[in-house]
This record gives sequence, C-alpha cells and structure tokens, in this order.
Amino acid sequence: MTQPKIKKLYDIQLRSGLSNMEKSDNFDRKTRRTILLTNIMFEGSKSEILVDDEGKISEIQTVLDKKISKEADLVINGNGSIALPGLVNTHTHAAMSLLRGYADDMLLQPWLEEKIWPLEAHLTEDDVYWGTKLACLEMIRTGTTAFNDMYLFTGKVPQAVDEMGLRAQLSYGYIDIGGSDNEEKSRRMTEQLVRSVKEMKNPRIKAAVGPHSVYTVSPEGLQWCADYAKQEDIGIHIHLSETGKEITDAVNQYGKRPVKILDDCGCLTSRTIAAHCCWLDDAECTLLGKRGTSAAHNPVSNMKLAVNRAMPYHWLKAAGTSVTLGTDGCASNNNLDMFEEMKVAALLQKYSWNNPTQLPAHEALTMATEAGAHALGFNSGKLAVGYDADIILIDPYSVQNVPAHNQVSNIVYSLNGSAVNTVIVHGSVLMYDRVIPGEEEIIQKAGTAALELVKRSQDDDETKRSKSSSAK
Amino acid sequence: MTQPKIKKLYDIQLRSGLSNMEKSDNFDRKTRRTILLTNIMFEGSKSEILVDDEGKISEIQTVLDKKISKEADLVINGNGSIALPGLVNTHTHAAMSLLRGYADDMLLQPWLEEKIWPLEAHLTEDDVYWGTKLACLEMIRTGTTAFNDMYLFTGKVPQAVDEMGLRAQLSYGYIDIGGSDNEEKSRRMTEQLVRSVKEMKNPRIKAAVGPHSVYTVSPEGLQWCADYAKQEDIGIHIHLSETGKEITDAVNQYGKRPVKILDDCGCLTSRTIAAHCCWLDDAECTLLGKRGTSAAHNPVSNMKLAVNRAMPYHWLKAAGTSVTLGTDGCASNNNLDMFEEMKVAALLQKYSWNNPTQLPAHEALTMATEAGAHALGFNSGKLAVGYDADIILIDPYSVQNVPAHNQVSNIVYSLNGSAVNTVIVHGSVLMYDRVIPGEEEIIQKAGTAALELVKRSQDDDETKRSKSSSAK
Repeated sequence: MTQPKIKKLYDIQLRSGLSNMEKSDNFDRKTRRTILLTNIMFEGSKSEILVDDEGKISEIQTVLDKKISKEADLVINGNGSIALPGLVNTHTHAAMSLLRGYADDMLLQPWLEEKIWPLEAHLTEDDVYWGTKLACLEMIRTGTTAFNDMYLFTGKVPQAVDEMGLRAQLSYGYIDIGGSDNEEKSRRMTEQLVRSVKEMKNPRIKAAVGPHSVYTVSPEGLQWCADYAKQEDIGIHIHLSETGKEITDAVNQYGKRPVKILDDCGCLTSRTIAAHCCWLDDAECTLLGKRGTSAAHNPVSNMKLAVNRAMPYHWLKAAGTSVTLGTDGCASNNNLDMFEEMKVAALLQKYSWNNPTQLPAHEALTMATEAGAHALGFNSGKLAVGYDADIILIDPYSVQNVPAHNQVSNIVYSLNGSAVNTVIVHGSVLMYDRVIPGEEEIIQKAGTAALELVKRSQDDDETKRSKSSSAK
Repeated sequence: MTQPKIKKLYDIQLRSGLSNMEKSDNFDRKTRRTILLTNIMFEGSKSEILVDDEGKISEIQTVLDKKISKEADLVINGNGSIALPGLVNTHTHAAMSLLRGYADDMLLQPWLEEKIWPLEAHLTEDDVYWGTKLACLEMIRTGTTAFNDMYLFTGKVPQAVDEMGLRAQLSYGYIDIGGSDNEEKSRRMTEQLVRSVKEMKNPRIKAAVGPHSVYTVSPEGLQWCADYAKQEDIGIHIHLSETGKEITDAVNQYGKRPVKILDDCGCLTSRTIAAHCCWLDDAECTLLGKRGTSAAHNPVSNMKLAVNRAMPYHWLKAAGTSVTLGTDGCASNNNLDMFEEMKVAALLQKYSWNNPTQLPAHEALTMATEAGAHALGFNSGKLAVGYDADIILIDPYSVQNVPAHNQVSNIVYSLNGSAVNTVIVHGSVLMYDRVIPGEEEIIQKAGTAALELVKRSQDDDETKRSKSSSAK
C-alpha cells in the first residue's frame, strides 16, 4: 500500500532499420508500422497494447505473447503511464484559435458585430489553414485525437488536418440569410468541401453538412442540407437552442421551437450533432433521443457568453439521448482543453441543476471519449481490440495525479491537458514525451497570421473612416 | 507585426563562487542573495527586475544600469517569459490534498459523514505534514506563492511551509459544538499554532484564528476568537454563507443571519477573510465593505458541492468590498490551480448573474494577486519597487498563449498552471525551468500516507464491525 516510486518517465525503442525517435521522420503519418505499448496502466491493471499496421488495436493483455510483441516495429515503454482513449471534441471552430483573446467580457451582440464578424470578414484561406494547424497542435498537446469542426474559408482545412494527423469531421458553416448571395455561396462551399474531403480518401477525415442554426438558415436551406447530407451519405453539424432568444425568435417567426423546425426539415438524424442544447425542454430531449441525434455540451462557452441555462443533462440521459462534449471555438472558451471541459461540464451540471450527484466523473469521461466517437461515427473512443488506435498516455506521478485513490476522478477533476505525454492517432505517434515535430513553425506562422489579420482589419477600418471623412 | 521566434527557453547564471543551478543547494531558502531577472516581459514591455538580499524588488526598468546589474549574485535570463506577481490562494485546507479523488459526486451530508469525516478522524500530524507538502508542491508548480490555510492536526504545518518556501497564513479549524471537549481542544490547538508560528520568526509565515463557521462555533466561541485575534494582533479566517441551509439555520437558531452573528461577536475585522460568501444579500455585502473584511470566492468548490448560488460579486464590488480568490481544499475541487480558479470565477459570475461583462479577465487577475495579498496583509501581490519578490514566470510561446492579442485574457481564459516555468518567493527560487528539488520524495511520501490513511480507516471500520457482530 505505497505510492510507487517515480521512475525515469519512459523510453521508446525502434526495431532494427528504423531511425531514432528524436528524428521527426519517426512521426511520419504515412508509414504504417506496428506499435507495442508496454508497461502501461489500463483500467487499473498493468497492460500491453499492440497496434497493427492498419492503425487498429490488435491485442490488449497483461503480458503479450513474446512472439507477438517481438514483431512490433516500434516499442514504447510507458513506465506506468495511464492509457486512455483519445478525447473527442464534438463541437469546435478550430481556426478561431487565431481569435483567442481578441475580445472577451462583452455582451453577445457587440461582441459579434464589433469584434468577431469584422475580423472574420478579413480572413483568408491561408489564415484558416494556419489557425486550424494551431488548433490541431493544441488538441494534440492536450490529448484530443478527434474533433467535429465547422468554419468558413475551408479550402485548406482538410490539408491542415491531414498534415497534423488528427481525426476529424469537417463542415462549412452554411448560412443563407442576411445577404442575397449567401445561399449560393454556402451551397458551393459545402459541395466543394465535401468533394475535396472525399477525394482525399483519408480514413481519418470525413465531411459533414454544417447548417449554422435555425436563426441563420431558412427552412428551405435546412431542407437542402438534410437532403444533401442524405444524398452524400454524411453527417450534419448544427448549433441548437443555445440562447433563450433563439427559442423566442423561432416561436415568433415560425410558430414552433427550434427542435421542431429541425425535425420538420429532416435535420434530426442519427448522424446529426446538435451543439449547445441549453434551452431544450423535456419533450425535445426525448425527441432527440428518438431520432438518435447527439447533443454536444459546451459548458465553458455557455458560461462565458452567459446563455443563462445549462443543458438539461438529466432529461437527455433519461431519454437515452447521446450526450457528448465540445469546447466551441477559442473566441468563446478560450482554449481547446477537453480535460478542462470535462471538469466544467461536471461542475456546471451540478451547480445549475442543484444536484452534486449529477454528471459524475465517469460519465463526463464517457461523454468525452466513447460517446463523442460514436456520435461522429468513428471506430475509436474506446481501447479495445478492433478499435482504431487513438490512444493517449497520461503521467502517473504528476503532483495533480497523486494520491491514487481514483484515477477517473483525478482525470476529470484534477488534471488538465498538460498531463498528456504521448498521443497516438490511427496508429501514428503525433506526440511523444511532449515533443510534437513542427510545433515552432506553427506557432510562428499562426501567431503572425493572427496579428496581421487584426492589422488588416484595423487598416481597412482606417481607410473607410478617412474615405467617409474626406467625402464630407 | 510578427509572432516572435521561439528561442531556447532561457538560461540561468550564477556569479562566481556559487555552484551550478542544477544542484539543489541553489534552491536553498536560507541563503539570501540578489537576483537579476533579465529579458522578461512585464506589463507588455521588455524589462529587467532586480531583487535585493532582503527578498524585495529593488529595481524594475527597461534596462538596468550595468553597475547595478553586475552586482547580482544570480542572473536568470527569461528569454521573453512573462513576469507576474505570484498568485495568492486565500482559502484552502492544504493537507486535504491527501483526500484528492477519495469521494466525489455525492450529496453534502453523506459526503461529509460517510467519507470525509471518518477519514479525517484517522489523520496524524505526520499525514498533515506530508499533505501540506504535497499541496505546497502543487502550488509552486502552478504559480501560487502565498496561501491562507485552515486545518486540523496542525502541529507540523508551519514546518512544512517553512521547508517549502511559500508564504502563508495558518490557522487551526476552531470548532466548539458537537462534543464537550471540542472547545478546550480548539483553544489549546489555536494557541499552540499561534505560539509556534510566532516563535519561528519567519517573515513568510503568520498565524491566524480559524473559527470554522457560525454553524460549528457558538457565539461565545466566536467572541473568544475575535478577542484572541485582537490580543495576538492576528487575522481571522472563517467560512461564511456557503449554503442556503446555513442562512436558514442561523435565522432559526439565533434570529439573525450569519453576517450579523459574526459582526455581533466582533469577527468582522479588516484582517478577516470570509470564504465562500455565496448567499450574502446586498446589505451584508455593504457591511463587509464597511468593516474592511475580505470575501474569498471559491467558484469550483461551490459548483462541485452545488451550493445553488454564486457569490454576488457585483454587489461586493459596488460596496467597495475586497474580493479575493481561493480553491478550497482538494476534496472539493480537486486541485489547487489558481489559473483554473480565475477562469471558473469569471465564467461562474457571468453565467450565474446572467451578464457576460461581469468579472472581466483583469479583475479576476487582480483578485488572484493584489487583492489576495492585501487581504492577507502580505507586502506582495504586485511587481513594484519595495514589494516582496514573489514572482512567477510564464511561457510566452506555449500553444495556449498564442496569438498574443491580449496577455491578461490568455492568462485567465486560456492558460493553466502548467504555463508557469519559474517561481520566486521572498527572493528565493522555488522552481526553475519546472524543476522543484525534492519533488520525488514528497510525491512518494504523501502518496503513501494517503493510501495508508484509507487503509487504517477501513481496518478500523472492519474491527468495529467484527466487534459489534461478535457482541451480538
């Protein structure tokens, strides 16, 4: 009954013919190789995990047959590290990491109208490429292996995700109100993104349709999205019932609540992820469950923007509705750390529904892993034979992981993303001992792109102001 | 307008006659030496900070006079690291880090009666010594340089804090109801702690009186605490208005609300820190301001235990009342990361009072630094000439600190304690480049003490059960 001694963290060995792990080519996402994880803790037992050259988990045992383990190309000795399925972020706008810290602590409308939208109007595809890479870098560092994205200027987003090695479902933020050419543009951009993702034939990346919400997409637009998703055999990603105003406005304009609007347009499918879901009533929770639609909880964003109600998790759970977890974009969070999101979800549910037993730690962890992967139709989110090898390793001896009364509690309530030391996605090592190849370039390029974006936006404002004053 | 390139993090040099920083004697808390911090960012400008051999900040300038800087014994090149005053945790029970993860997601009464109290009944002074060291280790790692503690079995707590090098105000949790010898024991333990702290003559450590709350201390006990604090010229640390039940019970039992009870007993002084303050009404906020009492906000704990109301920060602010920040103990948080606490405070205030402009980032940072130090009567919490040198350095190029739109926003909303790379308290280096000497031993000893504590408690239950069954 003693705390184990701290050992040299762990080491990694490559079989003959493979170069040293220090070299970045060992992080190569193209070369498939078998990986053996030894001396890791899995569900409380010392275990070994074998990953095959298809990127799938082929064995999990206390001690693998010597013959099997000898065949692995790459051996990682975890030295007691805890193995978890990689975390799944089911609602984000990855490239908004460029806007991290640009505007906070404001009322929703001035925040959007004076800060976020004017800046977004100056984005380029290159900005979004670097913003997405910055987001992927942060996700890898904090143990997220798959995410569900919706954004604009998506031309180079599939390339960014491909290069970073993460698993993702990508969508274009479809909006058809507020401008006569919005419909045409949204359809064209959606079709382009879906086509380019399909042409990649990358098993880690899929496309979805991203109707933004009932207040930015007309019923006809929602119907088009539902039909197009069906035709292309892909998922739907939408914002739903985030604020009380959304409900009131929908009832005033359409005589029905947002969930009914979506259902009538065919948008509630078993491949739909509806983000936020703060203002659902009991019947709506039941309907989502009946349709097999997943509800993505975004507690940090909901609190920061003061939406005034927490997702009714207990009703969704009672209805058997799949509930997942998301960070939202960095403009309203301001990070992508799913450990933090698990904790705040558990805290907000307890606080908001006045019940300290609501959303216990193990359910928060399930939301962030198995439920998220299931909602996205990925064969991951679980460490079991036959599943895709999306695996993260966590430090066993970091101060916030001591004492060892309850590992799941420590994960949800004490640790943050900095506890993750190694990340494997689809059988490729994306981070090893906290080293991510190419990190410096991404920080340099994305950091510069963000500052230049603000400068462009300000210069443009300046030009407009001087034009308008000289015209007087 | 570009993101600066990542440089080799930074380096440290010792002037002649001093050994290499790798050796733990460079972390020696006894030897006073002058420290020069070069190439750091302070309030947006590249700066140098000189710390004199009294542990005080003697210069802060863009570039110090060469003659002055040459005299420093120790030179730390921050290479762009951001300098902040160390964070101040104004309400915790440090040794409860031994209980991290032991019991979560439970209703308050069974959580206390079936889990926390039975375990605490088996604590020893040695357990509390190692628990306090574990907490100090976590605080150093996450950038907290001063804390306000209240706990039991406090015999070796001053020693633990002395050894760890932190600044602290220590109190014994005074309880006089629920047992006939509680009053005598509380007074004796309080007097012992105060005496032993005073005898240490350590400028970093002071004692306080710790009447637990109005529901665990009689009015006579509160009066004794107030008188004793006055006599000893020390502060008061108390829990106040944490739950609605506390208010109802006080009104039922005493015909007045908790704040009035404290005021009538003389417990509301300018050296009182009242933790929680969730259920204050407007008049009570004003009274605290009038008395100069500080209110310590504990958002994570309040949410986890579902106290059903957030501290009315806007009323306290309007009344000019000092508001500070605390983590509470690790049994109800479950960590001591003040970065996380700043974020959750800003989120909870916005969400709970339905106003996204409430508690903006810069106010959260002030709560966690200047206001906290002021409440504790420490001459720290601010980087300015004449202040005690409690300084932390933060990584400028970590992914969650990019882009550089707004450093304060990044600190509060994006970073966590893992961003801290160096910690200086009272002019001593407690962590350098994330190395804290003695970390392994503390993790080993505290981790073991925690597991053995649970075993002792379970064995004892076992014995009691078998005795009671054999008696039948």
